[in-house]
Amino acid sequence: MSIRILVTGGTFDKEYNELNGTLFFKDTHLPEMLKLGRCKLQVDIRTLMLVDSLDMTDEDRKLIVDHCSKIADERILITHGTDTIDQTARTLAEAKLPKTIVLTGAMIPYKFGSSDGLFNLGSALGFVQTLPHGVYVAMNGRYFLWNRVRKNRSTGEFEEI
Amino acid sequence: MSIRILVTGGTFDKEYNELNGTLFFKDTHLPEMLKLGRCKLQVDIRTLMLVDSLDMTDEDRKLIVDHCSKIADERILITHGTDTIDQTARTLAEAKLPKTIVLTGAMIPYKFGSSDGLFNLGSALGFVQTLPHGVYVAMNGRYFLWNRVRKNRSTGEFEEI
Amino acid sequence: MSIRILVTGGTFDKEYNELNGTLFFKDTHLPEMLKLGRCKLQVDIRTLMLVDSLDMTDEDRKLIVDHCSKIADERILITHGTDTIDQTARTLAEAKLPKTIVLTGAMIPYKFGSSDGLFNLGSALGFVQTLPHGVYVAMNGRYFLWNRVRKNRSTGEFEEI
Amino acid sequence: MSIRILVTGGTFDKEYNELNGTLFFKDTHLPEMLKLGRCKLQVDIRTLMLVDSLDMTDEDRKLIVDHCSKIADERILITHGTDTIDQTARTLAEAKLPKTIVLTGAMIPYKFGSSDGLFNLGSALGFVQTLPHGVYVAMNGRYFLWNRVRKNRSTGEFEEI
Repeated sequence: MSIRILVTGGTFDKEYNELNGTLFFKDTHLPEMLKLGRCKLQVDIRTLMLVDSLDMTDEDRKLIVDHCSKIADERILITHGTDTIDQTARTLAEAKLPKTIVLTGAMIPYKFGSSDGLFNLGSALGFVQTLPHGVYVAMNGRYFLWNRVRKNRSTGEFEEI
Repeated sequence: MSIRILVTGGTFDKEYNELNGTLFFKDTHLPEMLKLGRCKLQVDIRTLMLVDSLDMTDEDRKLIVDHCSKIADERILITHGTDTIDQTARTLAEAKLPKTIVLTGAMIPYKFGSSDGLFNLGSALGFVQTLPHGVYVAMNGRYFLWNRVRKNRSTGEFEEI
Repeated sequence: MSIRILVTGGTFDKEYNELNGTLFFKDTHLPEMLKLGRCKLQVDIRTLMLVDSLDMTDEDRKLIVDHCSKIADERILITHGTDTIDQTARTLAEAKLPKTIVLTGAMIPYKFGSSDGLFNLGSALGFVQTLPHGVYVAMNGRYFLWNRVRKNRSTGEFEEI
Repeated sequence: MSIRILVTGGTFDKEYNELNGTLFFKDTHLPEMLKLGRCKLQVDIRTLMLVDSLDMTDEDRKLIVDHCSKIADERILITHGTDTIDQTARTLAEAKLPKTIVLTGAMIPYKFGSSDGLFNLGSALGFVQTLPHGVYVAMNGRYFLWNRVRKNRSTGEFEEI
């Protein structure tokens, strides 16, 4: 089973700039994470952008939808910042693609040791291989249909609505 | 959705004894791992044993099957040493329980920093929520039917047969 | 040999707030770090403040000097943000205390896995036990006299002047 | 100040063989550790051997002494297994070299995340730059003269005798 992974940035891939104490993007850590997980799935990773999801524009979302539409892969995993992950899920759902698309993110950058990223990546890969066509968000070990999820900003958890 | 997690030991939970340089079991790290993954699934963890899977006996396997049979949960995740995980999967399959049972393990102990355990736990939780009744092994980001899997001892990878 | 450790904050003790993506102080990690290092020195840790060294005021520095002056310990280790560590060292030197005072910091927070903090703490403890009375900065495995050091802000390294 | 680092193996450099669950040596992690510590000392690392110190022979010790004797460096740091670190220290002391030689080790392998190695390396580098000529063991944040130290095998700590 072949899976396409699309990287868009988010906390997942943020790093700490030790010269000025800010967080920034350099490269995606997805290949390193898959290697750590000894993942032997046939995956094809493509970095579409590396942005904080609060900075993601309508054009960025259009680019993601276009990319999902034009590639042959039927199973797509998207890494995304958690703040607007539900918006991108909605935009993807409106495109009604005959595909299984799972979006996931992280609350703590992968490079920060205590990250939830590796766990989320594992569960999202589990979901993308087994769920029927549709658009889902995978966080907190759970999966949510695109129109049944919201991030609780005071707890940082994703909840069903 | 409620999930039962049964702990049996394996590399997952091994620790390093700094006094004599050997590996040993103290407690399971599953609660700590689920916390790191910010898992919000309703899970119930039970430690059945903490053994190296090369030391697992027929009686141990009978105990695992009996436990899976008598509990009400329909979705069960079992952490297990990788060396004989396929044998336990076979024993469970022969019991023909109307449940989804996913076994997973790790190549590197969780406490050793560079472990695949968190990734495997994530993917196994993904599979156990979505796969139909049956017995499966989840490793390397993939899932395998109990009778279609073997560990390649020279590479450490799980392969479909 | 008894050593006093004074905590003032700095990158050493910063943590990542997963709800808003900023860095903040909660508690010092010094006890945890000393435990990880299996340190058996007789140390007494006191948190004087938890501030970014760019926010450290003249009053904060006065408080540090007063504290160093009034305690009985002759060997004092101070954890400090790296941006103004040389200023605090100068203020301490001007007080001409008959003590060995070593200031150290970190470029990466201890909680971020890839931190230099544990290394710096080890070397600073080495220096504070062996150097004659005076005020020193310990970074990059080296020690510098208070009036012979500056942080190179483009490389993040400490240099002798 | 130029420092020679001699690597002899020990827990410091052990790795976990995920195929058979044993510990083994591949390469030294000293360069990686110094990089993590952002160490800017002028050091020259030489791997003399990679052995468990329980397997170290008289010939191995002779090789270490010969090497310390013939190199020009006056300050030498030796990484060593903790079980016989005091024996090698004694052999070195008997050679009465006009040098400062500090031996250090680790209770937990560097690769296992929760290692004391980085802390010990930092403190040993502090001691080797500041102590007078002699042979010392640096562990637990402390330094010990070669003839005043023993490892307490029930606690894993080094004690003054």
